[in-house]
Parts: sequence; structure tokens; C-alpha cells
Amino acid sequence: MCTSALTQSLVRRSVRAGHVTNHKYPHINMDIDAINALPCEDFVNIFGNVVEKCPLITAAVWSRRPFANLTALEAAISEFIDALPESGKEGILRCYPDLAGRDLQGDTLTRESREEHARAGLDALSSGEALRMSRLNWEYKVRFGFPFVICARMNDKANILQQLTERCRNERTVERARGIEEVKKISHLRLQSLVLPDAPNAPNKL
Amino acid sequence: MCTSALTQSLVRRSVRAGHVTNHKYPHINMDIDAINALPCEDFVNIFGNVVEKCPLITAAVWSRRPFANLTALEAAISEFIDALPESGKEGILRCYPDLAGRDLQGDTLTRESREEHARAGLDALSSGEALRMSRLNWEYKVRFGFPFVICARMNDKANILQQLTERCRNERTVERARGIEEVKKISHLRLQSLVLPDAPNAPNKL
Repeated sequence: MCTSALTQSLVRRSVRAGHVTNHKYPHINMDIDAINALPCEDFVNIFGNVVEKCPLITAAVWSRRPFANLTALEAAISEFIDALPESGKEGILRCYPDLAGRDLQGDTLTRESREEHARAGLDALSSGEALRMSRLNWEYKVRFGFPFVICARMNDKANILQQLTERCRNERTVERARGIEEVKKISHLRLQSLVLPDAPNAPNKL
Repeated sequence: MCTSALTQSLVRRSVRAGHVTNHKYPHINMDIDAINALPCEDFVNIFGNVVEKCPLITAAVWSRRPFANLTALEAAISEFIDALPESGKEGILRCYPDLAGRDLQGDTLTRESREEHARAGLDALSSGEALRMSRLNWEYKVRFGFPFVICARMNDKANILQQLTERCRNERTVERARGIEEVKKISHLRLQSLVLPDAPNAPNKL
């Protein structure tokens, strides 16, 4: 089914159960049954930015439903990414904004990225920190041809600056793989904010 | 180089040469030298919607530059799509909006898609045509699990309704391949609106 009637019903049910805070998707906490019943259009609307600006990935993964649990959905996304050619992995990295870069300055970050910037304190850098971040981001992109990606919510600004400095010294293949690891950490946290967590030792739903 | 200083210089040069009508990218007509010199961020900003909502593809293809000409850039996009697993091709199709669907009603179409709708007359359907289109789109998605994609600029609304009716009878694998053919036609026209055409019998630039 690819209409949104079922979705509306499931969202209403989740609202009654206290899992949903907003009808227009932000921060929905759906359970896996509700997710498995989503029409493709709604699935992509809800999960399309789990990998930054890459709804193609979420839309592809819809073919793999039903998912046993959140872990299975996350694994399907991860496997799709791993199966891409190296240029495709670089393509993913290039869809992420520079940290504290022109998208932050121009207020064109995605909602998810804006929140992640704020949590890591990247929206309140001193002028010295901002200058250092900008210079290092530039050096990194000149060296590798893709932007520095790090899971900002798992780091603070001091740690991010340190890692940016250190990772600039890596080889390109090492750094591409490292960037994709960080993409997966970011996706993990974005998924967790949208889906109810798997209950410990819960029976497989399928 | 991944800053936009060079881009600004190239855009200024193109403006002087009469190729650019706007500094903020819409309908830039760049030549292949200017495109090959684009930093990744600007390349993705300019070409990111050549395949609807799939900047990943354009960002991946940046790795293949320099391009000999527009045809080579288009071929690189096409080859990347062809190398995706079948689920990835379905993912691309799911990034396209329903024709005359809720994105048109809700004014959430991308700029490119809005223009394509208007050229085919899909933004001015009679209530009978709109109802028929909506029912057929729904039937198509229930049958195939992805939306009906057709190059609207190469068709008018009568032809689109006829093809939607006929293609609903196809097998899934046939229809997935047909949808991807249409994606490539749409990309071809979107690229042509951004890049100066290859001169006939022009020497290869590389």
C-alpha cells in the first residue's frame, strides 16, 4: 500500500499510546510494526535524512521490509552503504556539510545537522576556534576530495578539532572508511530519535 | 580545491561571456572547463538534483572528473545508476514525486519538478483528469512498490495518462528498467538546462 491512510491510522494509534509527539513527523517514536506498515512515500519522508541528504538509501532499504526490529533496519542501511562502489561512499560523504561551515553561517543546515551542531557547541565557536575549524576543513577537503565527517553528538568541539587535525594525516582509503564509520554512528543516533528502542531480550517480531 | 573562490571566479567569467544569468546557480549555463574546475560542494549544489533528490549520485560522479564534454558527464551519471543494485534503482524511483500528486498540491515539489509539471500541463488538470491520475498513480504504486516515473517534458498530459494506464500492466522488472530509462531522460534535459551543449564535431577537451 502506498497511500498514507494506513500511516495516519498508525500515527493516531501511536499518539494514543504516547509514542508520538507530533503529527508532522519530527521526533516520531514509532514501533517496528508501525514502521513495517509505512507506505514508501511516508517511510522516505520520515527516514530520508537518516543518512544526510541521501533519501535514495532509505528508499532502497524500504524494499527489505519487514524489519524484525530497529537493529535490522539499521543493518539494512549499513549493508546498502557497504555495497556501494567507493565513489558512492565518497558521494555520501560529500552530502554532509562542513562542520561549522557555510551551511551553518547561511542557516541552510538540515534540521538534524543543526541540532547536532548545537549539541556539540559548534554553533557557538569563538572567532579563533571558527578560524581554525575553517582552515582545517579546507585542508582536509583539498587532501581527500570529500568533507570531514564526524558524529558531533559523540564529541565536543575540542575533541572534534583534535580529530580533524589528526585525521588530516591519514591515507585517503583509511579516511574514506573512517568517514563512513562516522556516517553510520550519525545514522544510528538519528534512527534512535525516530524509532522506539528494541526491548532487551524481546522476541523477534517476525 | 574545495572552496568556492575558484567557482566565483568561473561564474564571473561566465557572466562576462554571457553564459550565466544568475549568480545563485539557477539556470547557469556553464561550459565543461568551468564544470571540471568546480569544487565538490559547488558541483553538488549545481547538479545535485539532476537525478531527483539524489545528490549522492552527482556527488559520487564528481570523483570521475575531468569530463571531456557534457556527454561524458551524462554517461558517468548513467553508469553509476546502472551499477547500483536493483534495490538502489527502486530507491531512485521512490525519490520522484507522484505526478500531479500531493507534492504538487502541497507546493513541495523541487523547482525542477515544478517546472516539468507546468510544461506538461499537469498543474492545470480538470477535476476528472486529476481523479483519474490519482487513482492510476495509486494502482501503479500498489502493484510495483515505487511511483510511476515519466519524462513529463517529452509528453503531454493525455499521453502521460495513456502511458500510466498501459505501464500498469507491465511486469515489475520491466517496469523498474523502464522507470530508470525515464529517470535518464529527465536527467538529460536537466543537465542540458545547466550546461552549454557540446559543439558538433568539437575536439575532445581532454
